[in-house]
Formats: sequence, C-alpha cells, structure tokens
Amino acid sequence: MPVPNRNGLEIVNIDVKDVRFPTSLGGHGSDALHTDPNYSCAYVTTTTENGKQGYGLTFTCGRGTEIVVLTVRSMKKFILGRNAADIFSDFAGFWRSITNDSQMRWLGPEKGVVHLAVAAIINSLWDLWARLENKPLWRLLVDMSPEELVSTIDFRYITDVLTKEEAIKILKDKEPGKDSRVKDLLENGYPAYTTQVGWLGYSDELVKELCEKYLSLGFKHFKVKVGLNFEDDYRRCSLVRKFIGDDKFLMVDANQAWSVDEAIEWMKKLAPLKPMWIEEPTSPDDVLGHAAIARALEPYGIGVATGEMCANRVMFKQFLQSGGMQYCQIDSARIGGVNEILSVYLMAEKFKTAVCPHAGGVGLCEMVQHLQLWDFARVSASRRGRLLEYVDQQHEHFVDPCRVLAAAYVAPTAPGYSTQMLPETLKKFSYPNGTEWQRMFKEGIFPMPDEAELVNE
Amino acid sequence: MPVPNRNGLEIVNIDVKDVRFPTSLGGHGSDALHTDPNYSCAYVTTTTENGKQGYGLTFTCGRGTEIVVLTVRSMKKFILGRNAADIFSDFAGFWRSITNDSQMRWLGPEKGVVHLAVAAIINSLWDLWARLENKPLWRLLVDMSPEELVSTIDFRYITDVLTKEEAIKILKDKEPGKDSRVKDLLENGYPAYTTQVGWLGYSDELVKELCEKYLSLGFKHFKVKVGLNFEDDYRRCSLVRKFIGDDKFLMVDANQAWSVDEAIEWMKKLAPLKPMWIEEPTSPDDVLGHAAIARALEPYGIGVATGEMCANRVMFKQFLQSGGMQYCQIDSARIGGVNEILSVYLMAEKFKTAVCPHAGGVGLCEMVQHLQLWDFARVSASRRGRLLEYVDQQHEHFVDPCRVLAAAYVAPTAPGYSTQMLPETLKKFSYPNGTEWQRMFKEGIFPMPDEAELVNE
Repeated sequence: MPVPNRNGLEIVNIDVKDVRFPTSLGGHGSDALHTDPNYSCAYVTTTTENGKQGYGLTFTCGRGTEIVVLTVRSMKKFILGRNAADIFSDFAGFWRSITNDSQMRWLGPEKGVVHLAVAAIINSLWDLWARLENKPLWRLLVDMSPEELVSTIDFRYITDVLTKEEAIKILKDKEPGKDSRVKDLLENGYPAYTTQVGWLGYSDELVKELCEKYLSLGFKHFKVKVGLNFEDDYRRCSLVRKFIGDDKFLMVDANQAWSVDEAIEWMKKLAPLKPMWIEEPTSPDDVLGHAAIARALEPYGIGVATGEMCANRVMFKQFLQSGGMQYCQIDSARIGGVNEILSVYLMAEKFKTAVCPHAGGVGLCEMVQHLQLWDFARVSASRRGRLLEYVDQQHEHFVDPCRVLAAAYVAPTAPGYSTQMLPETLKKFSYPNGTEWQRMFKEGIFPMPDEAELVNE
Repeated sequence: MPVPNRNGLEIVNIDVKDVRFPTSLGGHGSDALHTDPNYSCAYVTTTTENGKQGYGLTFTCGRGTEIVVLTVRSMKKFILGRNAADIFSDFAGFWRSITNDSQMRWLGPEKGVVHLAVAAIINSLWDLWARLENKPLWRLLVDMSPEELVSTIDFRYITDVLTKEEAIKILKDKEPGKDSRVKDLLENGYPAYTTQVGWLGYSDELVKELCEKYLSLGFKHFKVKVGLNFEDDYRRCSLVRKFIGDDKFLMVDANQAWSVDEAIEWMKKLAPLKPMWIEEPTSPDDVLGHAAIARALEPYGIGVATGEMCANRVMFKQFLQSGGMQYCQIDSARIGGVNEILSVYLMAEKFKTAVCPHAGGVGLCEMVQHLQLWDFARVSASRRGRLLEYVDQQHEHFVDPCRVLAAAYVAPTAPGYSTQMLPETLKKFSYPNGTEWQRMFKEGIFPMPDEAELVNE
C-alpha cells in the first residue's frame, strides 16, 4: 500500500470557501431546468501538521453554496486531529465514518448536501495523497494493486452486484497490457466531446460560430441542450446536425425536463436527427423510468445517458442492473468522492456499460480526466464508446488546468488531482467578500447577499 | 377552493429554530445505525402581516440540525413578501418554485437537506391554512373537493403511474360514505402500534416491563429494532414474542443495517418468530434490492416496510411499482411536506398498498395522525392492514399533543397541524442557547457546540 509515513501528517486545518463565478451573465451553462446558473464550488483545503496541503471541491450552481460550506464546517469534527496516513490505510472505514455519523446520516443518508460536502473533503484527501506520492492522481490509482485499490471502497449495499472479490478479479484480469495503455494515454490522451455549442441561452449565430470552431479543433461529438420547447429543439438540433454533417455525432441533453411518457414521445420525434444519446430525460431518481425510456428508444438507436445527479453507488447500481443507463455519467463531486466513484466504475465494467463522465462545471473536467485515464489503464481497458465531456469554462482559475488538444484530453503529469485554484481567483471570486463580487454588488449587477449567505463571512 | 381572503396575509416573517432534546442520554431512539440520536427538529414559524402564524417542522437526529436551519434561512427569499392566499390557490406551482430554484436544485434535487427544509416550510404553511380555516388539518383535507386537493400536487415525474385525472377519480370513487367514516374516526380514532418496547439500547428487564405496560394499554402490535447481532436479535425478539403471545403482532426494524443477501438470510432465520414485516432491511435508495427481498420473504409471510428515508415521490413511485414495499411508511417531514405526501397516498391507493406512516421522532406522531385520518375518510376508506406508529416521547412539548387511548390515536380537533411547540420548550431546548443546553454544557454532560453550530446564534 503506498501509504506515506505518519510523521507530520496529522490534519490540523480544514478550510472551506464559497467560490462563485457570475456565469449567468453570459447564458453559459443554461439548460431546461438551470436557466441562470452561476457556476460555483465549495472549495476545501486540508492542511497537515507539516504543512502539506490537499485541495478538493464540489461543484454547485450558485445559490445555496453557503449550505454546503456550512456542512463542511459541521463535518470538521470528524476529521481534525486524525492522521492522513491512518485515513489512507483504512480509507473505506474512514469514508463510512464520515458518511454515516449516527446523528448526521439522517440528513441524507449519502445524498444531497451532506454527500456534496463529503465529496469536497474526500477529494481534498485524495489530492493530498497523490501530492505526497508525487504523482498525478490517475497514476496513484494505476499503480495501486487490486487489493490496495478495493481497500478504499465501502462495499455496503452493493455486494448483491459486486463483491470485493469480484472487484479484485476485474482489476487482475486487466493487469496485462497496463503499461502499454499508460504509454498510449501519455501519447494520445483521451477523446473529448464538446457541450459548448448548444447551451439553451445561446443564439443561433453563436451556435453556428461554435460548431465551426469545435469542428476545426477536431471534435467529432457535439452535445445540445433540449427540453423546453420542441419546435425550438428541433430547429437547433437540425442546425447543429447541418453544421457538423452526418459523419459526426450529436448528443442531446434534457436536464430532467420530462416525465417518462413525454421523454419517449419527444425523443421519437427527434430521432430523425440521429442523436447518439438522450441525457437526463427525466428525474435523476427514476431508475425504472429510465429503463422504460431506454427500452422504448432502443429501436431508434438512441441510448440513455445519466448520472450527474445520481445520488450514490446504490442508485448507480440500480441504473446498471435495470438497463436504465447505456452511458454512465459519473460526476466527480456529487457522490462521495473518489472512493465511491471507483466502485461505480467497477460496477459499470461488470455490466459492460461505458462510463462517460459528467464534466463542465467548476473543476469537473480537471478531476474526471484522472478517473477516465485510470479506467482505460486498469478497468475497462477500452475507449470504445467512451468520451470525456469538455466545456471550455473556468479552467483559467486552476493551477494545473486540464488541457485539450485535437479534441483529446492531455494526460496530466503534475502531482495531485488538478484541483488547486489560483490564490488570485479566491481573492476575486470568494462569495460574498471577493473583490469581483464586491464590485458587482456595488454596480448593481447582482443583488447584495442575503442574511443566510453572510454566514460565509 | 377554501382559500382565505388575501387581506393581511402577506408573509412578513419566517423564523427558524434548532431545537434539540438530549434523548441519547437514555438510549431512547437507538437502533442499528443510529446509536445515540438526540431527537431534534428544525422548527419554522411563518407569520403574516396580520399576525397569523403557522408552525412547521422537520425531524432531525441532533448533529447537523444547524445545516437544515441555515437552509430554511437560505430559502426565505423565495417566500417572504408572497401572499399566503396566493400560495394556497396555486400551491403546486409554489411548491415547484421552492423545490426547483434553478440554482439551488443542484443541492438535491428534491432530497436530503434541501427537501427537509422544504418540508418544514411547507408544513408551516399547511398549519397556517388550517388555522385560517379554523379546522384541524385532516378536516381541511377531508373537506376539499377532489379537484381542489389535486391542485396542490406537482405531478411532474409521476404521470406514468398516476395522472391528475386518475387521482381525481380515486378521490371521487371514495366520496360515498365519507361522512360516516369521519364519524367513525371521531368515535373510534385510528389504531396504533408501539415501537417503545424494543429500542436497541434497552435492557431485557426494561423490554419486559414495557411489553407488559403496552399490553395493558391494549396494544396488539409491537416493533423491535434488529440488525446489529443475530443472536442478540433472536433472543430479544423471542422475549417479546413470549411476552405478547402468538395472537399479537411482532414487527422488526433493521434501520438499513444489511446488504440485500444478508437481509434475506437474517430474516429467514427470524421467520419462526413470525414477524409481520421487516422494516428498512437495506439502503433506503435500493428499490430493486427491496423488491428482491420482498420476493424472497413472501413465502414466509413477511412483508417489507420502508419509507421513512425515502427521498421523494419518485422513489415512492418505484417502490410501489416494483413490489419493493408492502407497507408504505411515509414520513411527514422528509419528503416535501403535505403536498408531496398526498401524491404518495394516492399512488399507494392505486397499487393497493397499505400506508403505515413513520412516526416517533419529534412532532411526527402529531402530524401523521392527520394524514392517516384523511386517508381513511377520503382515499383508501380502509383501516385494513394499516397502523399508525406510536412512540411516547416529546409529546409534552406540543401545544396540542397527539393522544393515544386504548391503543388508538384520538382524532385531533384543534385547528392546525398539531405542530406548535410550547414557548417554554423553545426557551429550554433551543440549541445551543436554550437554558437546558447551557446547563448541560456547564455540567459537562455534552460537549460545547462547535464553530458550525454557532451559526444558530
């Protein structure tokens, strides 16, 4: 087990910040249900006695980030004073202890605000671990033995589908060829798709311009937001299909706009435009509904993609069991951080379902590249039908931003999980006291923070 | 529509308090996963311009209540300044607006902390409405026409199982006999079961004493907590079975302790003691897992009960569709308040599944009695297989506490939803500044509140 020496690794501080970007001003990130998001995050810095730091975050959409921030503060008592090396050597046990505190678990369990806060904390610990090992996170994961890797996973509630032994076998079966796949990744990176051409808030002219831009950058997969108005959807999707041509791929994303029957009807009418998948057709909790939609759309060659709001491994388990998910879109910061995500990748492999992570939100592209590289090297050993979402937003705020060249993510080489933000960004965009927010309040661009948001001060 | 005149009904204040009771000191409420709960609540008081007030709450288990309190404060901006009469005349629209704010919905959606906060707010509005009509909540509901009642429900994501038209038909079909059922309820109340005999923290002597007490009070149904240790469970359940005799009913509750296979094995071994149901055998999110357990235990005459941690109507829909739930245990303050609960009762009726609400936590008995009385009068028209949970704790803190006589809830007659707490209770048990908490901190009975909990101040 690559567990660092305990000396100096007592966790002495957990800092958390509410960081918000005014993305609603440009319609970036707008979809059927999220009409004016301010892309944001709760940003956690974990510090050890000897001054080592790990950075973790969970993505949010603006309002309410103060609630996640408070939750991280409420969870500090479970972590401060513990030694990071001890945590890493029983990571599954630690994970259960902070997701299942006997009083706080009522607030979830393992879902919503409390799980977002867990994600930010857990991600900061993995970043810390990778930095201590002087490796990018994906290499830390790749270099772990199967036994070491599964020791980080809490298998409770998933053993009916995946036992620890099965997980080890999956990882062992894929050991041959591991080194050549790592080499391949370092040389060729990982294919990306773009969501940048089709936010609902964009004009037709902008859509055209962006299609041309991303085509020229080598992209073959283009995602368009749908779900508010059918005629408008058909027109916008036709436009994108016209610009990209029949040899490229179109995906559509309804962001939960529909009921089950409505999703089926709407998509049958969009079928002539040959979408590869329909993403989030209905409630993210509706396993059986997604399965019904998948069955109805299978004859049209349309798969169902979902996962960015899938609450935890138990929900993913059912989506995979039921056939409700042909593309598994794990989110790096909604379920309980890397540990739980590893279990989802392993279950997806068991069901031979492609993982195409959700990204685009603050820091999500930075994180999911690590997960997907590990998947190729150690789990699925395949890039077939798999893609990494790419949205060109907020990368400039990170110390080690993701890089996409010729429509492929370049494998990160710096130590950590790529989650550290620039000090300048924190100064400007911390909410509500960052200099940019203070300026925007003064200029009346945004209303002043309310009473609840002032707890961040 | 029994909507009050708008005059003076602008909502001018929403107060929220963190109220905690030191129940962990006595082992009350202890189960396999909640070993030391301090039964608590986030308590909301909504005040209109003319000084009318409505009281609502959501149950919590102690730590983390400050997070729900902050969430209510964060949601104030969606409610202050609105007129209560306008809310009641488009209650479904209002409900969707506060559960689906385009930025905050990322924190759920419709689950966990944000939904608990919605429940407390929504419950306070129903309490206000009932008080304005000078009726107990159950009579307000009973007196609504089918069309009026369904106008409060957001049918999004459930129309594949229940449309508005079907809901109206269910209610219309049960209009005959309504008045005699109301009379019956006023005369006979509603049958209760007790959870008081079998908390995990209780000694065998206390279990014996409590069995005798509740038998003498006329109870026929007794629930025992299980799930930590099989030998101990078998011994304790045998003890209760011996005390109550074979003509009474035993239920067992694992509070999510098991994986699917483990639940099936454990319960097959408890089957000789003839439990009527196994409650929460596994993760509350595992619809397909519950369905598998239900199929395996059906030959043993054991039904599956769940619902107290079921996140929302979409999850209930699937439990009902899949046969994963033979006893539907709605909680009055986990899903989004009365509006969403009504939709669950109507779906349960469609699937001919008995609703046996979860209660026992702070204020839950007070609330669920109203819901279940309405169900008998207007939805299922049956008490067959249906019971109301009863735990004799914290009722003394309410202005209009529930009353159980001869093992039956007495139909409440005071206006409202029975959710108003006594001023003395708020003075003593507000956390962390109530006089009782200050005393217990001083005496070292509980540790001082941490930084996060001080936001309540």
